[in-house]
Amino acid sequence: MVSLSSLCASFFHTGVVRTAASVEGGSAQRATAPGVALVQGASRGLGLEFVKQLLERSADGRVIATCRDPAGANSLSLLKEQHGERLTVLPLDVTKESTIEAAAKAVSEQHARLDMLINTAGILHVDHLNVQPETSLGKLDPHAMILTYQINAMGPLLVIKHMAALLKAGGGKGTGASAAIVANLSARVGSIGDNQVGGWYSYRASKSALNQLTKTVSLEFARRKDPVVCILLHPGTVDTDLSKPFQRNVPKGKLFTSEYSVQKLLGIIDGVGFKENGKFFAWDGQEIPW
Amino acid sequence: MVSLSSLCASFFHTGVVRTAASVEGGSAQRATAPGVALVQGASRGLGLEFVKQLLERSADGRVIATCRDPAGANSLSLLKEQHGERLTVLPLDVTKESTIEAAAKAVSEQHARLDMLINTAGILHVDHLNVQPETSLGKLDPHAMILTYQINAMGPLLVIKHMAALLKAGGGKGTGASAAIVANLSARVGSIGDNQVGGWYSYRASKSALNQLTKTVSLEFARRKDPVVCILLHPGTVDTDLSKPFQRNVPKGKLFTSEYSVQKLLGIIDGVGFKENGKFFAWDGQEIPW
Ligand SMILES: NC(=O)c1ccc[n+]([C@@H]2O[C@H](COP(=O)([O-])OP(=O)(O)OC[C@H]3O[C@@H](n4cnc5c(N)ncnc54)[C@H](OP(=O)(O)O)[C@@H]3O)[C@@H](O)[C@H]2O)c1
Ligand SMILES: NC(=O)c1ccc[n+]([C@@H]2O[C@H](COP(=O)([O-])OP(=O)(O)OC[C@H]3O[C@@H](n4cnc5c(N)ncnc54)[C@H](OP(=O)(O)O)[C@@H]3O)[C@@H](O)[C@H]2O)c1
Repeated sequence: MVSLSSLCASFFHTGVVRTAASVEGGSAQRATAPGVALVQGASRGLGLEFVKQLLERSADGRVIATCRDPAGANSLSLLKEQHGERLTVLPLDVTKESTIEAAAKAVSEQHARLDMLINTAGILHVDHLNVQPETSLGKLDPHAMILTYQINAMGPLLVIKHMAALLKAGGGKGTGASAAIVANLSARVGSIGDNQVGGWYSYRASKSALNQLTKTVSLEFARRKDPVVCILLHPGTVDTDLSKPFQRNVPKGKLFTSEYSVQKLLGIIDGVGFKENGKFFAWDGQEIPW
Repeated sequence: MVSLSSLCASFFHTGVVRTAASVEGGSAQRATAPGVALVQGASRGLGLEFVKQLLERSADGRVIATCRDPAGANSLSLLKEQHGERLTVLPLDVTKESTIEAAAKAVSEQHARLDMLINTAGILHVDHLNVQPETSLGKLDPHAMILTYQINAMGPLLVIKHMAALLKAGGGKGTGASAAIVANLSARVGSIGDNQVGGWYSYRASKSALNQLTKTVSLEFARRKDPVVCILLHPGTVDTDLSKPFQRNVPKGKLFTSEYSVQKLLGIIDGVGFKENGKFFAWDGQEIPW
């Protein structure tokens, strides 16, 4: 169990770093220490890297990493060996609401609050389930469309549903920050206005839906005056399993490492306050149109 | 079987009506006669009204009306009695792809083409399935979210998937128009940029996804140089079963009859050409932001 005073210390000892997205007045006063942060979808890729960097940036912040199969998540097990009680690994499959509920219960018992929630789980292709980004209309498959929607769009919202009370508790009390932050990993191809080439139907639609759902929940937190800010992030094209089959056409220098992307995204998260609630930012801090 | 010459006649005998949305150059040269039009979701509400008005506006256009249960669709049966072979009623449930495929086969055998496809089926509430627009985050229910997505977002796209070859045939040859039109009924609350109040998570997300899917397919038709134009329409708040429980707060004069809304929407459809491909219009011809 982490003590409140050690958490406050971690928030106060590290400086407040702000990015281009930062604003005067009404900002969240978030520090670079994670307080109690939950990273959902942490077995590999960007989620795993968020866990690493959140653990590294302060000596006393707590991180909860969730994934479908903790026993098989070797990289998380290694981190657990290094960081001991500062890292908790919990099972969570976004397509099974009971696992989300159980994870929220565990966080509630252990920390009674959350200062940061980063939803990263997402699919573009799942080879053994015949899910592939559609190159044409004729390839639309109802099963793939539903699974993509469940994981990419519904998943983050169901997690927020069950973590809302913890976020409210974390954002409001004794952490040195005036709001908890929820960051949902979206994608530029989810922008309708920016869609110039078509294709990738299921993935695009799921991310547009995620954008709408995140905007909607950001308005609900604001209406309730809960100290919770929700944003959407595009990580750039990042060298992970998700992008692997599609990296051939990425221009030189435009394929980021997870390290670089997560550094940039944490920079944005650090700079976000109430004025950014409900907005959609790329890795470089630029807002992306809907 | 409708002869090609009688259809051409219907296009040539009626004038080309254009709305504010109309543009010079590259427009579809669509006439007020329907040629061969398919209205999907036609048992009641706006879909039924589209069928009525399409049958009334010319003496020889053909209309295919699809619904889940033709035997129980009394209003369509009455129209069938009045209009005989000009109206064909076919079973189609957008959540069962095989019924879409079968409907496309029937249209192919009967007409071998389509000049207009209007996707209207949509849900906001389904009382016996416990689907209700969510007033808060805590009410998110995975089953309701998936069903809403299946009907509102995936449905129209799966219909387009199976009708694409018919639309290409209809839009390109001998009808007096230079493109077939697909109109998908969306909703202003599907606009992310316009979302000021939150709530209605599943419905909003499904319509944002529909907007993205429609934009995506519009780009595919354009890339293939197929003579098919796809648009999204917001009908206003219309007095149907869908809006019934939510009509109390509608300002006086802002609750439209189906007759009025469909008149307006057909006016927009008549004015649409290639330049409007992939756009989202309200009943009054104004473009809605994503
Ligand atoms: N990489 C890019 O270029 C890029 C670009 C734009 C946006 N994004 C977005 O960034 C996010 C992270 O992507 P990534 O590149 O890190 O992907 P990734 O390396 O493929 O990792 C995906 C993660 O999602 C998890 N996941 C899949 N299904 C799940 C489920 N049902 N429940 C819980 N977790 C599940 C996976 O867990 P398992 O190990 O159990 O499968 C894995 O941890 C995604 O939302 C993606 O859409 C990525
Ligand atoms: N009315 C409004 O104020 C309003 C406002 C904005 C947007 N819209 C949109 O306009 C469209 C038409 O709405 P409406 O007001 O006419 O609704 P409605 O009166 O409730 O009619 C809905 C129609 O959808 C059909 N449907 C439901 N589930 C289906 C399925 N699985 N497969 C095929 N058809 C199915 C229904 O058929 P059954 O008879 O078999 O149930 C019915 O014909 C919808 O897309 C709606 O979102 C309406």
